[in-house]
Amino acid sequence: MKMQLDDSLALHTDLYQINMAETYWNDGIHNRKAVFDVYFRKLPFGNGYAVFAGLEKVVNYLNNFAFSNSDLAYLKELGYKDDFIAYLKTIRFTGNLRSMREGEVVFENEPILRIEAPLAEAQLIETPLLNIVNYQTLVATKASRIKQVIGNQSAMEFGTRRAQEMDAALWGTRAAYIGGFDATSNVRAGKLFDIPVAGTHAHALVQAYQDEYVAFKKYAERHKDCVFLVDTYDTLKSGVPNAIKVAKELGNKINFLGVRLDSGDLAYLSKETRKMLDAAGFKNAKIYASNDLDEYTILNLKAQGAQIDVWGIGTKLITAFDQPALGAVYKLVSIQKNNESDEMVDTIKVGAKMGGNLEKLTTPGKKRVYRIIQKVNNKSEGDYIALEEETPQKDKKLKMFHPVHTFISKFITNFEARDLHVDIFKKGKLVYQLPILKQIQKYTAESLTYLWDEYKRTMNPEVYHVDLSQKCWENKMNKIKEVQEKVNRVGSK
Amino acid sequence: MKMQLDDSLALHTDLYQINMAETYWNDGIHNRKAVFDVYFRKLPFGNGYAVFAGLEKVVNYLNNFAFSNSDLAYLKELGYKDDFIAYLKTIRFTGNLRSMREGEVVFENEPILRIEAPLAEAQLIETPLLNIVNYQTLVATKASRIKQVIGNQSAMEFGTRRAQEMDAALWGTRAAYIGGFDATSNVRAGKLFDIPVAGTHAHALVQAYQDEYVAFKKYAERHKDCVFLVDTYDTLKSGVPNAIKVAKELGNKINFLGVRLDSGDLAYLSKETRKMLDAAGFKNAKIYASNDLDEYTILNLKAQGAQIDVWGIGTKLITAFDQPALGAVYKLVSIQKNNESDEMVDTIKVGAKMGGNLEKLTTPGKKRVYRIIQKVNNKSEGDYIALEEETPQKDKKLKMFHPVHTFISKFITNFEARDLHVDIFKKGKLVYQLPILKQIQKYTAESLTYLWDEYKRTMNPEVYHVDLSQKCWENKMNKIKEVQEKVNRVGSK
Repeated sequence: MKMQLDDSLALHTDLYQINMAETYWNDGIHNRKAVFDVYFRKLPFGNGYAVFAGLEKVVNYLNNFAFSNSDLAYLKELGYKDDFIAYLKTIRFTGNLRSMREGEVVFENEPILRIEAPLAEAQLIETPLLNIVNYQTLVATKASRIKQVIGNQSAMEFGTRRAQEMDAALWGTRAAYIGGFDATSNVRAGKLFDIPVAGTHAHALVQAYQDEYVAFKKYAERHKDCVFLVDTYDTLKSGVPNAIKVAKELGNKINFLGVRLDSGDLAYLSKETRKMLDAAGFKNAKIYASNDLDEYTILNLKAQGAQIDVWGIGTKLITAFDQPALGAVYKLVSIQKNNESDEMVDTIKVGAKMGGNLEKLTTPGKKRVYRIIQKVNNKSEGDYIALEEETPQKDKKLKMFHPVHTFISKFITNFEARDLHVDIFKKGKLVYQLPILKQIQKYTAESLTYLWDEYKRTMNPEVYHVDLSQKCWENKMNKIKEVQEKVNRVGSK
Repeated sequence: MKMQLDDSLALHTDLYQINMAETYWNDGIHNRKAVFDVYFRKLPFGNGYAVFAGLEKVVNYLNNFAFSNSDLAYLKELGYKDDFIAYLKTIRFTGNLRSMREGEVVFENEPILRIEAPLAEAQLIETPLLNIVNYQTLVATKASRIKQVIGNQSAMEFGTRRAQEMDAALWGTRAAYIGGFDATSNVRAGKLFDIPVAGTHAHALVQAYQDEYVAFKKYAERHKDCVFLVDTYDTLKSGVPNAIKVAKELGNKINFLGVRLDSGDLAYLSKETRKMLDAAGFKNAKIYASNDLDEYTILNLKAQGAQIDVWGIGTKLITAFDQPALGAVYKLVSIQKNNESDEMVDTIKVGAKMGGNLEKLTTPGKKRVYRIIQKVNNKSEGDYIALEEETPQKDKKLKMFHPVHTFISKFITNFEARDLHVDIFKKGKLVYQLPILKQIQKYTAESLTYLWDEYKRTMNPEVYHVDLSQKCWENKMNKIKEVQEKVNRVGSK
């Protein structure tokens, strides 16, 4: 690795972004205003909703966006010419960013972030924005999903050693906290994000003393709060008896919080452990469990009557094991028509085959996203995507129709149309006060109260509606028609 | 996020490591020499081998291991007392590290790294070492596996936007290169690791010009090497015809390298595209393909006769999608018996239930790993784990037996027993010259030549033998017996 003291994140992008920026710059269209949407096409894990995370890091990235000297020197090495490099040297983020709040409950095909910036700038920042939002949103969603089955019990994030490198461990545990987790084992995350940290000892302590009883006792000599890990040799024959013995001997000198199980049949072992703890008079001692847990194993353990009070979740959460990538994309939806006027023209991407599989079809135009909340019960009827100039918040009656099966529609009255975006950057200036993490966690919990429970089931949740306004839908249809005609012209030659 | 100018990685560990270090320090055993092994229990992806990666970052981490002032201030906030904090302030890595070379072909249950250090130090570094080695080894293995089906064609890493945060994108693409990939789209990785970078343009370029022909032409005005992305509107009706049109018009003014397909049926589209390119006289133009590719889709596409020359692999590689975590562990295998002498005692961990599921059983003792290579054909017979003092490299005849089904054995003669570990740190001093990345990639390719093809199949590979020496096996059996007796004593009380 070539160490670079001035290493920046400006090069943390795909090479094609730089080549596109160069093309625009060479053609003199690099400063045309462009609007890009960030959205995903499919909810992860078969969940009924997702939890958006990543905004704070996006803000930090955009605030510091600039090519360093070593970045530019490397681009010169690659063969880029001085004129273009001189231009890159001047680039900063000067655009507007509207975004959902971090922690917002979000759905398929709705713009989570909307970037409006000079074309070249907007292009260069695509890759890192997706890199950040995809992972953090994925883990916040997984955490929220796991939290749905854990309920009011404690959930701890223990995954650092299995995380996909260090940033994932750090930002992943922050995302888990947003999704509703209570604590993390990662001390650096505790320091940087003010997340409560948790953990007592591992098997190595017992091995180091080669005696469980001695190890527990040595731990207790220095630490008042004690959770003993009881499965180094044999949970029921050795671990739990030794823990009880130490707890009895030390009495009030320690807070015997409980024991942790990390292997074996957690349902059986926890029930037996509970009996042993109760019989010894430690009815308040809690049972902590870990070992490849996720929402499925937790549901099953609970169904089997497992006596587990605190859940330590590692690998399956921090890597989003059953679906380790969210496919959020960054798509151009509108662009300044020419350098001479401010007029915008909306754009579309169709995909490999007009009329074929249209899963990659985009929705053109500068748009806003509204959550349509019934005033009578404070529950959401669905989300509503409208063009920038529309004002559904002023409408008395709203027609919502299915974006694919358009013949299915409903009329809503007595509603609040809540604009889900807030201004983050205006002309490159940060105009948003980032909330502290605790507030974000709270915001997520509140956002979830607007959803009916049918969307929060971990299996087969109902599909939440994300509808297009009539104008937005017509605009899309017109664009498709335009492209169709153009394709047919090329094809017929 | 609380910005800390002196943020270090020393706190990038689990809280319990700090509590264990405190216990050892409080008890005065923190400087006892301890030996820990890093190994995984199961090869990922059902592959027949893994490729070790992560050593360079481990070295950087250990070289810089020290708690910063803000780290210590945070620990004080958490309630740790001044005496212990004063001790932590002095901690550096002063131990020995023996490790396999980065890029080495590795197998289940063999120590990839062996740390021999004062107990507290060794404990604190566990989490980050696993965090690094687990992910980088996982991706290097996935890349090598994909490369097995790609063969001599080009493989490009395109996954940054879907990586699990930024470190994964960066170090993941480095691991992919070790595994045999040719290039990456991540420009920062190119700069820091000297990996060739690749990429031309995205759909946004076509959308920005709202005309494919114009977009291709504008790109070609500035860039001599051209690969046109042809699926923005309709691959065969619009994309390929426009690419051919531009290539014909510009002739020798550009290097028309080919076209890229990013959606739709890649088998059908690539075959049709090939015909169109050939018919237009561009027989040397290559077809690049991407879109959620992995070893399975590539095998299938090849079986269907897809005409793809260059493979762009994103999500499935960078997240190791079908198994996003490697379960490498860090286990204490030997420890100084007491503070008064240098005598070591070996340690074992059994798991939840003596005599139950023993998958988490460890192998005690300070060990070495040898690759047993038949001199007659330069092929490996298996790996051989022996205790430190054994010298199988001097033996004329070696008995290798199955570590579980011990009645299965074979005798090997005329072999080379190659010690797979090299000294990296000695008493805290780096004694190893890190190779450049290109050399590591080459080393991986060479290491693979020692394996018979039967271990390199992507489906149902043969199981490579990792055997214990007789002494190592007996040592393990003795330790199990010791623990069994101790557990029975506790249990019978």
